[in-house]
Amino acid sequence: MHKHPPPVPRPPRVPAPAAEAPREAPVRRSSDEMRVYGLNACLAIFQRRPDDVRKVYLSEARLGALKAVLAWCVERRLGYRVVENADLDKLTQSQHHEGVCFEVRRRPLLSLSTLLQRLPPPKPALLVWLDGVGNPHNFGAVLRSAANFGVKGLILPRESALNVSGAALRVAEGGAEAVPIAQTAPGEDVFGALRNAEIEVAATVPRAGESLYAAALPSRLVFVLGAEGSGVRQALVDRAGRHLTIPGSGAVESLNVAASAAVLFGEYYRQQSAAAERKNFRKR
Amino acid sequence: MHKHPPPVPRPPRVPAPAAEAPREAPVRRSSDEMRVYGLNACLAIFQRRPDDVRKVYLSEARLGALKAVLAWCVERRLGYRVVENADLDKLTQSQHHEGVCFEVRRRPLLSLSTLLQRLPPPKPALLVWLDGVGNPHNFGAVLRSAANFGVKGLILPRESALNVSGAALRVAEGGAEAVPIAQTAPGEDVFGALRNAEIEVAATVPRAGESLYAAALPSRLVFVLGAEGSGVRQALVDRAGRHLTIPGSGAVESLNVAASAAVLFGEYYRQQSAAAERKNFRKR
Repeated sequence: MHKHPPPVPRPPRVPAPAAEAPREAPVRRSSDEMRVYGLNACLAIFQRRPDDVRKVYLSEARLGALKAVLAWCVERRLGYRVVENADLDKLTQSQHHEGVCFEVRRRPLLSLSTLLQRLPPPKPALLVWLDGVGNPHNFGAVLRSAANFGVKGLILPRESALNVSGAALRVAEGGAEAVPIAQTAPGEDVFGALRNAEIEVAATVPRAGESLYAAALPSRLVFVLGAEGSGVRQALVDRAGRHLTIPGSGAVESLNVAASAAVLFGEYYRQQSAAAERKNFRKR
Repeated sequence: MHKHPPPVPRPPRVPAPAAEAPREAPVRRSSDEMRVYGLNACLAIFQRRPDDVRKVYLSEARLGALKAVLAWCVERRLGYRVVENADLDKLTQSQHHEGVCFEVRRRPLLSLSTLLQRLPPPKPALLVWLDGVGNPHNFGAVLRSAANFGVKGLILPRESALNVSGAALRVAEGGAEAVPIAQTAPGEDVFGALRNAEIEVAATVPRAGESLYAAALPSRLVFVLGAEGSGVRQALVDRAGRHLTIPGSGAVESLNVAASAAVLFGEYYRQQSAAAERKNFRKR
């Protein structure tokens, strides 16, 4: 690690208090703070909400990539520390930190009504509702694809096991900063709220739904995605206005939930782009 | 584990030789054998090539799901053992074995020419060429989506770090059995072979390619996918007849390679389905 010093000059360090030594890997932080790791995940936070960055840990190899962040730390008198990769392993409890870990203020989850108020009809809006997806890697992968295809929000049920963890944010590669996340309230009438917002509910089902590629997708839509294995809960399937199936050869039971999400978002994006093009063509 | 005996009667065990006790987790096996784990991965092998199954390890909880496999073992005098999950952890070097591990004969990789001979023009055929994807999870995820969308073959470069590992097969959820895999030979003229087979080469590029959703995809096509980060090598991009970009909001740099693959395969499937429908319509 130390054999090839990076070409950037090392900025002066702000001394961190002893209690924050990274080797101690503190297990409790205030609940409005979290550790984020992975280069793109950290840089996305720095770009979109630098005031939420509280502390920066990085390996010497990342001094170049994080130059602007360190300058910001110096300017704002935020603590940063150049540490060994082994320290980052402990801090992040992961080996996928890519040489950087930020302690940041959590982005507060929205209420469903706040999310919907920001998306008034008739403007097109695609949402995704994760019903029971419990794996942080799948969650992160859905966020990344959602960000890529301009999904306007992600709905998590109150009882979801998912949380916006460091692992999910790393896999999202910065995408979590671009997709507002709303959590439903206990007993909230989610279907009623979506209906009032003129957003159609399409549950994805493994078989016997309308083929995604035969469906004309409405411009205001939420895809409901379920857990690997169990799928979308039947009670939600029953209440959804549409049932969509991604067609296929039948050689595997289904796509992975993150692959399904990418395919669904992509097809919505394609149909919206085609509709916008037709509109522009008529205008000419 | 042993508190709730499963409802199926336990079939008689074929004694395994002492050297094969699972606790010893042998590190070497003959190079034409491998360990496969994960329920769908193992069941797919049993369904498609049962003669390749050499030995079966399972947890007691899987006796029901693997009843037909055990009956086969008894009939063929193949060894099987009911073991603890901790033994499966060691055998598979994974915690994602889902209670089952098979020792199986490897499916031999094809040569590129054998693969192409099986796909004579003018029948539609989609292939995928992985240039530098080194992560077994991404590899497995690509195989699963490829199987779902009926991809006819996967091309691995000779120098690929990828191999058909237990981890990749588990993530593929059985999809690896449905997609023939070919490996190129050193110095082989892959572009020439594809051209002779009338298969167009479309390299995926993060920016500035033709938009996937504006492209009319040919019915005989290979998508070239590159590694996370570095992408498809420039030498391949330069030689490819088409450059495709999955469009997006720009909020993230790119999609994950497995998500990209799902989106690409899905769009090809959509276009082929639409073409088949038009053809049927004209016939009526």
